[in-house]
Amino acid sequence: MPMVRVEMYPGRTRQQKADLAKAITEAVVKIAKTTAEATHVVFVEVPKSDWAIAGKLTDES
Amino acid sequence: MPMVRVEMYPGRTRQQKADLAKAITEAVVKIAKTTAEATHVVFVEVPKSDWAIAGKLTDES
Amino acid sequence: MPMVRVEMYPGRTRQQKADLAKAITEAVVKIAKTTAEATHVVFVEVPKSDWAIAGKLTDES
Amino acid sequence: MPMVRVEMYPGRTRQQKADLAKAITEAVVKIAKTTAEATHVVFVEVPKSDWAIAGKLTDES
Amino acid sequence: MPMVRVEMYPGRTRQQKADLAKAITEAVVKIAKTTAEATHVVFVEVPKSDWAIAGKLTDES
Amino acid sequence: MPMVRVEMYPGRTRQQKADLAKAITEAVVKIAKTTAEATHVVFVEVPKSDWAIAGKLTDES
Repeated sequence: MPMVRVEMYPGRTRQQKADLAKAITEAVVKIAKTTAEATHVVFVEVPKSDWAIAGKLTDES
Repeated sequence: MPMVRVEMYPGRTRQQKADLAKAITEAVVKIAKTTAEATHVVFVEVPKSDWAIAGKLTDES
Repeated sequence: MPMVRVEMYPGRTRQQKADLAKAITEAVVKIAKTTAEATHVVFVEVPKSDWAIAGKLTDES
Repeated sequence: MPMVRVEMYPGRTRQQKADLAKAITEAVVKIAKTTAEATHVVFVEVPKSDWAIAGKLTDES
Repeated sequence: MPMVRVEMYPGRTRQQKADLAKAITEAVVKIAKTTAEATHVVFVEVPKSDWAIAGKLTDES
Repeated sequence: MPMVRVEMYPGRTRQQKADLAKAITEAVVKIAKTTAEATHVVFVEVPKSDWAIAGKLTDES
């Protein structure tokens, strides 16, 4: 019953998300031996102004 | 100190969320033997265009 | 397609979790107008030694 | 800087996780246009006794 | 490879988030013995109308 | 009502977690203008064998 959550910056198109959900689901079904119907993929967009690496918000130039 | 997170599609009204928070908190207090004050319920709305099942975004018709 | 995650201290029995999952699911179905089949409830146990409030781990006496 | 979290039942081998991390990372890099180095995949195992669907813990027969 | 997620009400300025990311990262690096580069801090804003304590949404007066 | 979640590899002592919870809480209180009592810090340990970067589980040598 895999639940996959993908946190990433905004900016991907609906088509990219659709393609990514399809590819991740296929990988999960094939490798983790589950069904597609049981596999959820959720996208969570985190703005660069809310994501820091090395102590700096990543929207800083 | 239960922390309950509810991820669901957008579209519920404020009243529905208020009712749901109340019902979930009552269940947690009664069954898990904690206090209402210690129980948090957080709602996270995930658009159908960001939620895939069986490899398809759920806003597809 | 609600996904409910309950973080709490360890110590609840399997029966308490079963009762809580049932009660939360009923509340979600009734109030948020979805189906039971689409509703997932996941329990995540967090030891008191990993949960701090007011800057103190809650296993401190 | 994608962060992918996969919640699933226990029981997959280390090799399955390694293969899944590789496949998911390749899909993310190719489709979301990021680098492999920036892509994290985290596995979280949730026992069936902690995962309910339709109000029932999924370890019930 | 610490990943820190801070859920809080909206209303903090970009500067407050920048300061908080810096302070948290410094604490993680110093105390948990890791590198700043490996430390991520993500802010997630949860409206008071989506956060309940003691069974009441916290935007209630 | 900040809720801070720290995901990291296992291996930190109880004292390190206590110090980290204290330091993070102080930073949150000072910078985000909230109270210590309202601030929770939760530690989640993720084994290296469950955390992949660049498509490889990080317990690989």
